[in-house]
Amino acid sequence: MKIAIDAMGGDNAPKAVVEGCIDAANEYGIEIYLIGNEKEIEKHLNGIKPAKGSIHIVHADEVITGEDAPVQAIKQKKDSSMVIGLKMVKDGQCHAFLSAGNTGAFLAGSLLKVGRIKGIDRPALAPLLPTEKGVCMLIDAGANMDCKPKNLLQFALMGSIYMEKVVGIQSPRIGLLNVGTEESKGNDLTKQSYELLKGSNLNFVGNVEARDIFSGICDVLVCDGFAGNVVLKNTEGLASTIMSLLKEELMKSTVSKFGALLLKNSFRSFKKRFDYKEYGGAPFLGINGIMIKAHGSSDRKAIMNAIRQAKLLYDNNCIDRIMMDLKDTGVNDVE
Amino acid sequence: MKIAIDAMGGDNAPKAVVEGCIDAANEYGIEIYLIGNEKEIEKHLNGIKPAKGSIHIVHADEVITGEDAPVQAIKQKKDSSMVIGLKMVKDGQCHAFLSAGNTGAFLAGSLLKVGRIKGIDRPALAPLLPTEKGVCMLIDAGANMDCKPKNLLQFALMGSIYMEKVVGIQSPRIGLLNVGTEESKGNDLTKQSYELLKGSNLNFVGNVEARDIFSGICDVLVCDGFAGNVVLKNTEGLASTIMSLLKEELMKSTVSKFGALLLKNSFRSFKKRFDYKEYGGAPFLGINGIMIKAHGSSDRKAIMNAIRQAKLLYDNNCIDRIMMDLKDTGVNDVE
Repeated sequence: MKIAIDAMGGDNAPKAVVEGCIDAANEYGIEIYLIGNEKEIEKHLNGIKPAKGSIHIVHADEVITGEDAPVQAIKQKKDSSMVIGLKMVKDGQCHAFLSAGNTGAFLAGSLLKVGRIKGIDRPALAPLLPTEKGVCMLIDAGANMDCKPKNLLQFALMGSIYMEKVVGIQSPRIGLLNVGTEESKGNDLTKQSYELLKGSNLNFVGNVEARDIFSGICDVLVCDGFAGNVVLKNTEGLASTIMSLLKEELMKSTVSKFGALLLKNSFRSFKKRFDYKEYGGAPFLGINGIMIKAHGSSDRKAIMNAIRQAKLLYDNNCIDRIMMDLKDTGVNDVE
Repeated sequence: MKIAIDAMGGDNAPKAVVEGCIDAANEYGIEIYLIGNEKEIEKHLNGIKPAKGSIHIVHADEVITGEDAPVQAIKQKKDSSMVIGLKMVKDGQCHAFLSAGNTGAFLAGSLLKVGRIKGIDRPALAPLLPTEKGVCMLIDAGANMDCKPKNLLQFALMGSIYMEKVVGIQSPRIGLLNVGTEESKGNDLTKQSYELLKGSNLNFVGNVEARDIFSGICDVLVCDGFAGNVVLKNTEGLASTIMSLLKEELMKSTVSKFGALLLKNSFRSFKKRFDYKEYGGAPFLGINGIMIKAHGSSDRKAIMNAIRQAKLLYDNNCIDRIMMDLKDTGVNDVE
């Protein structure tokens, strides 16, 4: 497998990206194309050659930063690491592209430079959320603001294939994010989407309220990108607020400080369950190539896990499978 | 002040409701009308007469349960504690109504039996969320699914008045729930609402991402009822999941159990900050009367705090103020 990687994207780039690539090449024996400033990449590679697989440097003169306007950056920064990486997938030189950089540019670039799978109207960003029992895919988490019921049906189909092929869940349970569990609940979009999902051959388990996501009630949670983005960011923000308030309480007295010391391992193990690094990146499903958006603050381990995820998508032919299922299920006959 | 209270609504009714009313009468010297099964109410009153204020029992033959379909229940169960209470506000016998019962029936009943403030198109449910710095009003949290920009502007106006008059915040900061902070972000609704809010004389601080709600970035967070309901329930669900996972970790070893014991007070003080009981109920703003929806699991203290909230709305003439401001600001000239 050949994977193009944006060496310059993310808070810890290029160091964490380069190191994560060394680990991934060693572990999975894949061919990695690291795109970015040649000198900087070489500095962090420091002469290391992986025992398995290989790492090639592709020089890029420009970098798309977090402050760049997405569409404009993709159109104007033609020599950026992101645009070069996307083109390598488009041209068939690589099977997958991974970046921890500007999310908007990543989404816009994937659409503009690589393009959609025929039959998928709107590709969707699909991170995994930790639950009490495992993980739940949230699709769409922010790529599509105003959606049609048909888009949500396609999200459900792609999410189902991912959870089955990549995560290994048989007959993934598809839930529809809604304000109540009854069929009649919700806004126009969810009411109409409910009907489509009920009529599909997916394992649709009905409406899911946002309070039940973390109990592990479904494997794929379908929603429009506005609502999904609210769930994702609310979850991030609340988890971080709870942690900082808890820390504040624990530092208040000598007794509580001593108690906190005894609980160091417990807190560490607890924190791990909410750590995005364990879960890889968010696939951008529906693009005609494997696209992985790693978290902006990805470290070495997160990059390696995101590469592992790209490999699983590749090994399991997920894109072909989406194309086939679109035909088989007649999802696209829906208007 | 005269307040009608649904003695039969909520998980701990009528006991917790009756006890909360005794406390509130004693504390605030108000006139309370407890509506429900006379015998049951009397049993829990147990002959107690508050030192200040007064408690009157209004017998109701029926109860609207959590399983009842809201609109149908309001129309058919004419002798229910909820319908009788709403009528007492409509007829001017009471200034406010409070219930911890069926939320859907409460919202539908308020609209059908009491009616809207002239000029408010869609009343909104507006709970307070705890933040690192205080509280933030979430409006709308689930009463209106598909909204227009004009509705969001009215929500902002009502929220601003509430936070100023009841919570005591000068020139409350109004945020618009969105997927990014830039003006151009969001779906059709938020883009158009941004323009309206920017042009209003409210203290609009721009778009707020869901990850920043808990940092206390705004005093009023405006959104449609679908998105607001997702925020509310996601917050509830995640907080409860984090607590139960933490508990699990702390019970794993003898050392961690001992550490947890030392931290008992810290955990208690921490939990209090996320306890809805401290914050009263959620006002249903835009109804032509003071309407408070208390949490379904309200205990004695939560009921008393919700009554306190109704009193503050009354003492500060919040409904008149909404009517006046609607005229002054020309919010209703917007189409």
